Amino acid sequence: MELKAPKGTRDFPPEEKIVRDRIADALKEVFGLYGFSPFETPVIELYDVLASKYAGGAEILKETFRLQDQGQRELGLRYDLTVPLARYVAMNPRMKMPFKRYHVGDVFRDGPVNLGRYRQFTQCDVDTIGASSLKADAELLALAQRAFRKLGLDGTVRVNNRKLLKEVTDACGIPAEKSDDVILSLDKLDKVGREGVEKELKGKSIGGDSIGKLLSIIGAKGNNAEKITRLKKDVPGSVGLGEVEEVLGYAGGLGVDAVFDVSLARGLSYYTGTIMEVVLKSGKVRSSVCGGGRYDRMIGDFIGRGNVPAVGISFGLDRIYDALVEKEEARAKTVTQLLIVPLGEYGKAARITEELRSDGVRVEIDLMERGPSKSLQYADSLGIPFVAFIGEDELKQGRMKLKSMKTGKETLCTVKEATAVILDG
Amino acid sequence: MELKAPKGTRDFPPEEKIVRDRIADALKEVFGLYGFSPFETPVIELYDVLASKYAGGAEILKETFRLQDQGQRELGLRYDLTVPLARYVAMNPRMKMPFKRYHVGDVFRDGPVNLGRYRQFTQCDVDTIGASSLKADAELLALAQRAFRKLGLDGTVRVNNRKLLKEVTDACGIPAEKSDDVILSLDKLDKVGREGVEKELKGKSIGGDSIGKLLSIIGAKGNNAEKITRLKKDVPGSVGLGEVEEVLGYAGGLGVDAVFDVSLARGLSYYTGTIMEVVLKSGKVRSSVCGGGRYDRMIGDFIGRGNVPAVGISFGLDRIYDALVEKEEARAKTVTQLLIVPLGEYGKAARITEELRSDGVRVEIDLMERGPSKSLQYADSLGIPFVAFIGEDELKQGRMKLKSMKTGKETLCTVKEATAVILDG
Repeated sequence: MELKAPKGTRDFPPEEKIVRDRIADALKEVFGLYGFSPFETPVIELYDVLASKYAGGAEILKETFRLQDQGQRELGLRYDLTVPLARYVAMNPRMKMPFKRYHVGDVFRDGPVNLGRYRQFTQCDVDTIGASSLKADAELLALAQRAFRKLGLDGTVRVNNRKLLKEVTDACGIPAEKSDDVILSLDKLDKVGREGVEKELKGKSIGGDSIGKLLSIIGAKGNNAEKITRLKKDVPGSVGLGEVEEVLGYAGGLGVDAVFDVSLARGLSYYTGTIMEVVLKSGKVRSSVCGGGRYDRMIGDFIGRGNVPAVGISFGLDRIYDALVEKEEARAKTVTQLLIVPLGEYGKAARITEELRSDGVRVEIDLMERGPSKSLQYADSLGIPFVAFIGEDELKQGRMKLKSMKTGKETLCTVKEATAVILDG
Repeated sequence: MELKAPKGTRDFPPEEKIVRDRIADALKEVFGLYGFSPFETPVIELYDVLASKYAGGAEILKETFRLQDQGQRELGLRYDLTVPLARYVAMNPRMKMPFKRYHVGDVFRDGPVNLGRYRQFTQCDVDTIGASSLKADAELLALAQRAFRKLGLDGTVRVNNRKLLKEVTDACGIPAEKSDDVILSLDKLDKVGREGVEKELKGKSIGGDSIGKLLSIIGAKGNNAEKITRLKKDVPGSVGLGEVEEVLGYAGGLGVDAVFDVSLARGLSYYTGTIMEVVLKSGKVRSSVCGGGRYDRMIGDFIGRGNVPAVGISFGLDRIYDALVEKEEARAKTVTQLLIVPLGEYGKAARITEELRSDGVRVEIDLMERGPSKSLQYADSLGIPFVAFIGEDELKQGRMKLKSMKTGKETLCTVKEATAVILDG
C-alpha cells in the first residue's frame, strides 16, 4: 500500500490551513457586508446535471470525475459551483429575488496537473441572481476591491464587456460565427503576448487587416475616459460600451477604482455583458486572483425558463494563498498561544489552564510529561509564543512564571496579567 | 434531465447554512482554546488506503464511493477523517508530538438512507496524536463540555473504558474470542433495551448466567465513586477501571462533570482504552452528538510502526444542528442587517452604503429598482431587521429614515447613529 494523497490533491498541515482559513474568513466577512449569505450544495451531483448542454461545456466535462452509487445512479464530482447554483435556482422557482449567496467549496477536475493545476481546489463564489440592474455588477467590483484591501493585497480591478467585444469584432469585419473563437484568443494576450495572439488569429483564418484593427482597438491606452472616447469612434453606437460606462458610473459611486481594459476577455463563453477580474499589482503571482461577469442566459437556458439575470465573481483561494505567503515571514505551526508546563502540580495547573481558556487564551498544557527544556524546544519548533511554568513556588504566590519565546523575558504573573500580556500579542 | 441533488445528499439554503456555520465556528473556537490547530486532507483518497485492513473495516468499505482518475488510479471518497489522519501521520514520521489537530470536513457513505442517514455529512474531528498520558483523554472531555456549553446545549458527558469492558466479559465467563462481539451488542442497549440485548446475546450463544452477570455489572447504579467501588468487587485488579479512575481524576481537575457509565460501549472495535460520548439531556435528539475514545493501535498498525498513542473525539454537525434548530424560533434567511432603499438618489445612497459596510454593518442596497412597499415586503420575507430610506429630504439633513422591522418604529438618523442601533441588535 502506497501512503500518499491522490495525484493532484494536497494535504494542508496546520501551518498552511491556518492561513487558508484566515483568507476564507476574511472573504466571508466581506461577502456578508454586501448582504451575501452562506450556501452549500453537495460535492456529488447527478452526472446529467453536470453534463447539461448549458452547463460547463465539453472541455470541462472531459475532466469530470464520474462515479455511481449502489443504485447504479450516474454521478459526478462538481467541477464548479455555478452549475449546482443553477440547479438550485431551478428547483426553487418561488425564491425571493435578488438571491445573493456565496459558496466556499471544493471543486474537482481530473485534468493534467502540470502548470500548478490541482484536481481538487477551493473556489469562493459570490453571485447575485435575479437582478438585471448593472448596479449588481458594480457592487461585485466594490466587494472585490474591499476583499483584497482587507487581505492586505494590492490588486487592480479590471472591467470590460462581452457585448462590446462582439461589437469590436463586428467593427473589424470578423464574421459573427468566428467572434467567440477570436475572443477566446484575446483571452491569451497576457500569456502569449501580441505576437502570439496575432499568430493564433492568422491560424483561425482572420485577415491581416482585421487583426491589425482588432489589436489596435483592444490596445486602447489612456485613462477610462480617454478609452471610452476612443471606443466611441471605433464602435459607434455600441451597447456594450454604454454598459461599461454605466457600470463604471455606479462603481465610482461605491468608491471603486476600476480600470476599463478593452483587452480583458475571460474565457468562458457564457458571459453576456460585464466581465471583470482582479490582478495583483506586485509579487510573483501575476495571474488573475478573482474573476467573473454577467451571465444572463445560462441559468435560464439551463432550467428552460427564459432569461434569469445573474452576475457573479469567483475568488481562487489557492492563488490568493500563494500571494499572501510570499509576503509573510515564518508561519506558526499551531494556533496555540501559551504552553503550560506543570512542575509536579498537574491538578492545580489544569485548573489555571481552564481559567485561561475561559478568558479566551488558546492554551496547551503539557501532555507528554516532559521537563522544562524539552517543553521549550517543542514550543520553539511549533512557534508557540509563550510558555508558563507552574510549580510549588509559583502556586504559593498565586502566580505563574511566564516566558516570552520571542524576547526570552520571564515574569512572575497572575492569570489575569498573563491573559492581558498574551492577548495583546 | 432531472433537477435534484443526488439521493442522500442535501442543499443547504442560507437559513440552514447560517446556523451550520455558527455551530462550526463555535466548535473551531473551542478546539483552538485547547491548542488544536486546523488541518485538511483531500476528499479523495487512494482506494488502497481506505481499504487497508487496519482502516475502517469491511462494513464501511462496502459503503465507500469508488472512482478512477484519467490515469486509471483506483480512488475512493473518504468515509471518515481518521484514516486520512493516519495516512498523514505515517507520511510525516518526524512530526513534533503531540500532534493536535482538528478537521471539519465532509465524509461520504454510499449506504441506506433511511433512519436519517445521509450519503454526505459533516464531521468535526479533534485528535491528539503521540500522547499516551490519559491527561489527553481528560482534556477532550473538558473540550466537549465547553463546546456544548458554548452552543447553549445541555449535554451529559459519559465515560467508560474498553479494557474494562473486556475485563467485565472475562469476569462473566464469556470466551475471549466472543468479547468484541458481545461489546458490539452492548452498544445497542440504548436502542433495543435490556431485553433486546439479552435476546441478541442468546443468539450469540452466550449462557444465561453470563448474560445475567454481565447485565447486572454494566447496569451498575449510583454516583461515580459508588460504581467504582462496586466494579472493584466485580472485576478485582481491573486495569481498565484504574484508567477510568485516572481519567475522572484529571477531568475533575479540569472542571468536567463526567458520568462513569459501565454500559457505554461505542461500536468501533479499534478503541483500546477510554471511550466517551456526549448525549443531550433534553429535546428530541436523544442520540449521541459527539463520541470518541483512545485508539493506541490503529495508526501504528496502519503504518507498520508499532503503537502510536492516539485519542480523539468527533462531533456530528447534523445532529447538533437538529438539536439547535429545535430550540430556535424563526430563522433569518439572510445575514443582511439593513436594506437601503434609495429614493431617486442612487449615487449618494451607494456612498452611504459603503460607509456603513466600513463600519461593519451587513448592508444590501436595493438592486431591483423597486419602490418602498415592495422593498419592505422583501425585507420582511427574508427577515432583514432594518430598512433605511434615503431620498432628497433625508440627504439634505445628512440623515436616513431607519425603520425597525420588528417594532415598526421609524427614526431619522445619521450613519453613525444607524450603525450603533443596528450593531446593538
